[in-house]
Amino acid sequence: MNFNVTILGCGSALAARGMHHAGQAVNVHEQLYLVDCGEGTQDRLLRFGISPHKIRAVFLSHMHGDHIYGIFPLISTLGLLGKKTPLKIFAPHPFGELLDAVSSYLENRLPYEVQYIPIDPTASDKIYENKVLEVSTVPLRHSKPAAGFLFREKIPALNVKKEAIAEYGLGVAQIVAAKRGEDIPDASGRLIPNRELTFIPYRPRSFAYISDTSYSGKAVKLIEGVDLLFHEATFADAEKALAKATGHSTAADAAKAAARAGAGELIIGHFSARYKDLSPLLREARDIFPRTTLAHEGRTYSIPLKK
Amino acid sequence: MNFNVTILGCGSALAARGMHHAGQAVNVHEQLYLVDCGEGTQDRLLRFGISPHKIRAVFLSHMHGDHIYGIFPLISTLGLLGKKTPLKIFAPHPFGELLDAVSSYLENRLPYEVQYIPIDPTASDKIYENKVLEVSTVPLRHSKPAAGFLFREKIPALNVKKEAIAEYGLGVAQIVAAKRGEDIPDASGRLIPNRELTFIPYRPRSFAYISDTSYSGKAVKLIEGVDLLFHEATFADAEKALAKATGHSTAADAAKAAARAGAGELIIGHFSARYKDLSPLLREARDIFPRTTLAHEGRTYSIPLKK
Repeated sequence: MNFNVTILGCGSALAARGMHHAGQAVNVHEQLYLVDCGEGTQDRLLRFGISPHKIRAVFLSHMHGDHIYGIFPLISTLGLLGKKTPLKIFAPHPFGELLDAVSSYLENRLPYEVQYIPIDPTASDKIYENKVLEVSTVPLRHSKPAAGFLFREKIPALNVKKEAIAEYGLGVAQIVAAKRGEDIPDASGRLIPNRELTFIPYRPRSFAYISDTSYSGKAVKLIEGVDLLFHEATFADAEKALAKATGHSTAADAAKAAARAGAGELIIGHFSARYKDLSPLLREARDIFPRTTLAHEGRTYSIPLKK
Repeated sequence: MNFNVTILGCGSALAARGMHHAGQAVNVHEQLYLVDCGEGTQDRLLRFGISPHKIRAVFLSHMHGDHIYGIFPLISTLGLLGKKTPLKIFAPHPFGELLDAVSSYLENRLPYEVQYIPIDPTASDKIYENKVLEVSTVPLRHSKPAAGFLFREKIPALNVKKEAIAEYGLGVAQIVAAKRGEDIPDASGRLIPNRELTFIPYRPRSFAYISDTSYSGKAVKLIEGVDLLFHEATFADAEKALAKATGHSTAADAAKAAARAGAGELIIGHFSARYKDLSPLLREARDIFPRTTLAHEGRTYSIPLKK
């Protein structure tokens, strides 16, 4: 039951060697979700051994090229690979119009359906769910309307304790009922409380993707208690004024967000190309939030199972 | 006075590891021209140490994504790098409409002008020239209207022989006149024929980019005597039927084109992702045209100065 994030691009708008445009592959129980899709994302999926076939949905944060340009060639590649099932793409308006324009000029025979679902980047909405996962939007503060994404495991189904099955001699029907949360009568007719029979196999885990944005107290509230937080940190403290002017965060802003949200771990990324050495950003963040690491392309950050 | 070509992408529509989408950097006397621009072209320019600042013009062969998708993020990057001079992009209709659509959604503040110049992929037209170079279109046979490009050095200005200057005691005015091709009177009034005074410093060199296409006898005529030919060879002979059906060439088709055009050297590329080992394609081409090499990303193929 994996829950992890692989960084596909840790750079910002001006890509530099080893720091490409935004992209992350979120793996939740072996289903893959792509968050942002800058140029070359498919190339890095390939390089890091992640099959694009596994992508269930794509979440695009905002309409800036460095978060978008890779989606069109990826759509094309999935067609060439013979994809048949629909691909859901969640993005703010007017992504759908751009998609239509590009498709009409360059893609005429896709063997699968691309389903564009517009999201409202000013609202906190549940936009996607399946058996094990929910994804919600987190409004951000950027030069264009932008949404972060909060991935949360659902509360898993109850498991029945092996020792309880043995002790009370539970049959199949009783086990099924216990899994539904019911209390079960024993041989003497006394009701055994469900909590004596069952346990929650793991506590739901969560990951938040917060990029691009200035520090946002509102976003922090929405991601409270998140286990793993990716927060953009385009700039160091010395470029604080530039961060503000461009709707971006410093490493300290990212760390403040992690601290105030009570996050488990923080990954910072979306680095400006000006930094050859990222250690000052890491230091500035760790001064505020010690459990910070730098995003590194190709690296996978796992959220361990919580009992 | 360099004239060389660096391969930026040697793959076809379905990119594979180490074989990316189409792109070539043509260097003529230290001015750079980009031919096709698949996804990630700017990343490979960076990786191969080629400054995108040097790009004078972009030539796009046809409206398929694997030849196009990299141009939009490259346009964006040149803006971030502070480009001020216009960028000319030559491409078949309706590239301009697509460019307008993408720009209107994703680029609003470019500090330089993108000049789109439509080309007619059914005609052989001179579409670009400067002091030292002419570029012409070569109609191709593909599933979409497609043009190849022929790069030709212009005949260079005459140089005056040092020994003639000494022998006849030529002054500055006489040297300038000789460079213009004039005969010069000597001290006794006898006209010295220009050919005794001057020489052509080098013979004009040429490079042709022929992709994507089925074998085309018409294209071969237009590139007769070319020094360096890049010809697509998507398939091996075993996939000949597929090549025909998709408007592509086999390695043998490429070699036949080189042989019939009397080319100096042949580079084959635009390889299908199905080939892990390209040596059969090389063998099939060399059986027909021995001076064939495989396109290799990052490799620069020079055309030596011809005296």
